[in-house]
Amino acid sequence: MSIKFQLKASVLAVALASLPWMSAQAADEPIQPIEPVKEINLALSELGKKLYFDPRLSRSGFISCNSCHNLSMGGTDNLQTSIGDKWQQGPINSPTVLNSSMNLAQFWDGRAADLKEQAGGPIANPGEMAFTHTLAVDTLSSIPGYRREFRLVFGEDGVNIDKITSAIAEFEKTLVTPNSRFDHWLLGDQDALTATEKAGYELFKNSGCAACHNGPAVGGNSFQKMGLVQPYQTDNPAEGLSAVTGKDADRFMFKVPTLRNVELTYPYFHDGAAQTLTEAVDIMGRLQLGRKYSAEENAQIVAFLKTLTGDQPQFMLPILPPSVDETPVPRPFD
Amino acid sequence: MSIKFQLKASVLAVALASLPWMSAQAADEPIQPIEPVKEINLALSELGKKLYFDPRLSRSGFISCNSCHNLSMGGTDNLQTSIGDKWQQGPINSPTVLNSSMNLAQFWDGRAADLKEQAGGPIANPGEMAFTHTLAVDTLSSIPGYRREFRLVFGEDGVNIDKITSAIAEFEKTLVTPNSRFDHWLLGDQDALTATEKAGYELFKNSGCAACHNGPAVGGNSFQKMGLVQPYQTDNPAEGLSAVTGKDADRFMFKVPTLRNVELTYPYFHDGAAQTLTEAVDIMGRLQLGRKYSAEENAQIVAFLKTLTGDQPQFMLPILPPSVDETPVPRPFD
Ligand code: HEC
Ligand code: HEC
Ligand code: HEC
Ligand code: HEC
Ligand SMILES: [Ca+2]
Ligand SMILES: [Ca+2]
Repeated sequence: MSIKFQLKASVLAVALASLPWMSAQAADEPIQPIEPVKEINLALSELGKKLYFDPRLSRSGFISCNSCHNLSMGGTDNLQTSIGDKWQQGPINSPTVLNSSMNLAQFWDGRAADLKEQAGGPIANPGEMAFTHTLAVDTLSSIPGYRREFRLVFGEDGVNIDKITSAIAEFEKTLVTPNSRFDHWLLGDQDALTATEKAGYELFKNSGCAACHNGPAVGGNSFQKMGLVQPYQTDNPAEGLSAVTGKDADRFMFKVPTLRNVELTYPYFHDGAAQTLTEAVDIMGRLQLGRKYSAEENAQIVAFLKTLTGDQPQFMLPILPPSVDETPVPRPFD
Repeated sequence: MSIKFQLKASVLAVALASLPWMSAQAADEPIQPIEPVKEINLALSELGKKLYFDPRLSRSGFISCNSCHNLSMGGTDNLQTSIGDKWQQGPINSPTVLNSSMNLAQFWDGRAADLKEQAGGPIANPGEMAFTHTLAVDTLSSIPGYRREFRLVFGEDGVNIDKITSAIAEFEKTLVTPNSRFDHWLLGDQDALTATEKAGYELFKNSGCAACHNGPAVGGNSFQKMGLVQPYQTDNPAEGLSAVTGKDADRFMFKVPTLRNVELTYPYFHDGAAQTLTEAVDIMGRLQLGRKYSAEENAQIVAFLKTLTGDQPQFMLPILPPSVDETPVPRPFD
């Protein structure tokens, strides 16, 4: 089967691409430790953090990036589909922003190339923040504290959407979660995992999960068909990559989600239909691999998946510069 | 006029109650520096911080205390009236939680005696978090991370609404904002204020504002009639203290809001109708004192009020313990 072959080849490629600082053990595994973040422009990222938390980027003045990608809750909202402007029901499950810098592209269907391109989307999306880029720029430009900070960071006067999305993307680059128990194990601490967790990992590798969920993010690096062996039943109309490529062959191809911090990112799948990891693992086994796991096997895999929870980003709650008399007033009920 | 006499007496009482650690200067003033917080039960407050940020205390799983009292934005939502469950329009402006521990009572009409009594309100308020205390307790009890933390903090098993509100109230006690430029001046730094700001403060004292806005919180310590000299025009049906006492004489008596951080807590008044400080000061002058300030006087008072912005609470964004399979699932769209 050509797809299966392709998958095996990709596991091999990842294994070969292992990095010099890894232990011999990590190098042999399909999953690598999360690399610490490097080369962060700190002032840019601090500005981005403020913007990430600022509901004034939304029409209502109530919804910020953190509303739907709550960094207290694994970078998600833990809802089946999101709540947007005026309580509109979102079309799809909100993926985590944690480790999203490692994704080969952004969104379930990959329609944004990178974090900077992505960040402009929700601000102007009528179902999310429902603002316009012009109004967002006008709002921030009216605020002296932001004007000063943009000048400091960019070395020139003026706020524009390009600077806004660069800053948010730089902050998002810092949102990695190293130091999980699984990484401890990869880095040589044999005792970091229990026997059950190790058994779960063996199953995860040997039965084929690692064919799609691999690399440092345990996913995020390819598009794959949801329902490879057996079709996935859902009411959700999303069709994945084909919406971007227009190719029929790409129907139901979704970006493989990262399994880092998957304990925190419930509910699961693009439609948010699986509430528990037990359910998600069962569905993956049957639909992607044609394999029905026993309750014990399923529990072992779930135990392994929970070892992928890493250090959550630790930072001070940002204090936002206040609006002034000239700042446009939010009108949430108009 | 008996009300005026009463007001003068209360200023005197505050001046007499000045504390030993104050400079001679502060002791003579109607406003005292914010005292640093003491005797905080740190474990209880840390638990309360998590609860304050946890949207699982709401029916939708989307709204936390921090949604309406955003600690990135002066402890308010900066909206005329709040957005509650299902985007319901709230009846009244959301007051700041900063320094609210100094209030003689909670809410605009004082219907809650203290922060602990207050905290149970919004959880069960159908227009705010729209949950029930039973469901809130069930939700938290299902979460192992919370079960452990409640046990650690209270020295016994079990979660209940009394423990939840105690913890939130303890966290709120930490939300004081000392160290404003005005406090620097009170504590002896003559250069902490500009000439304009000092002129503004003199006007604030001499024309009578300090009769109602006094003490360490510059308000929060009495109920006063809104529209003392001239009636206040508003569409908002709130009638203040009379809703609590049933007395006709208490109609339009509202708790005098703290003016600490008033630069951050726009828009102003219980109906959120005044968008700017300039407008609020003008209305106060005319309606409470029968005095129309010149543009220059108004600007001086506004400049003084902006010196009341203190150090905002600085803390790490809390990381919330994840839900588990047994945790009730939020149903925001039912
Ligand atoms: C109203 C809810 C909501 C808001 C507000 C929101 N997002 Fe999202 N976000 C989503 C949803 C839903 C998706 C998935 C959309 C899709 O794939 O089609 C998403 C996708 C993303 C992704 C892609 C992650 C991945 O793995 O593909 C990133 C990154 C992201 N959002 C960051 C942000 C930033 C930055 C902001 C603020 C500027 C923001 N979001 C505001 C709901 C929201
Ligand atoms: C052929 C590729 C492929 C294989 C094999 C595969 N997965 Fe997946 N996995 C995906 C894709 C694609 C998704 C996203 C599907 C969707 O949301 O519609 C996904 C989603 C998941 C999710 C939900 C993540 C989230 O945040 O929503 C979990 C958990 C998961 N996989 C675990 C596993 C396990 C365990 C195995 C082995 C039993 C496995 N996967 C095998 C491609 C694969
Ligand atoms: C949906 C918006 C909303 C939510 C959620 C909310 N509040 Fe409030 N809060 C308000 C409004 C509006 C008032 C004023 C109500 C009144 O005075 O009648 C208020 C009043 C208060 C007060 C009184 C302050 C004063 O000076 O009188 C405190 C303290 C407070 N809230 C704390 C909390 C806590 C703690 C939570 C979470 C358990 C919370 N609030 C949730 C909107 C909200
Ligand atoms: C007789 C009592 C009284 C006097 C005198 C008084 N105030 Fe007030 N002040 C109040 C009350 C009561 C409110 C709340 C009214 C409401 O919201 O309906 C208030 C509200 C305010 C607010 C809005 C605060 C907020 O957060 O909404 C400002 C600003 C203010 N006063 C400043 C002043 C200034 C400046 C003066 C002098 C010109 C003054 N006040 C004189 C009682 C008084
Ligand atoms: Ca999810
Ligand atoms: Ca206000």
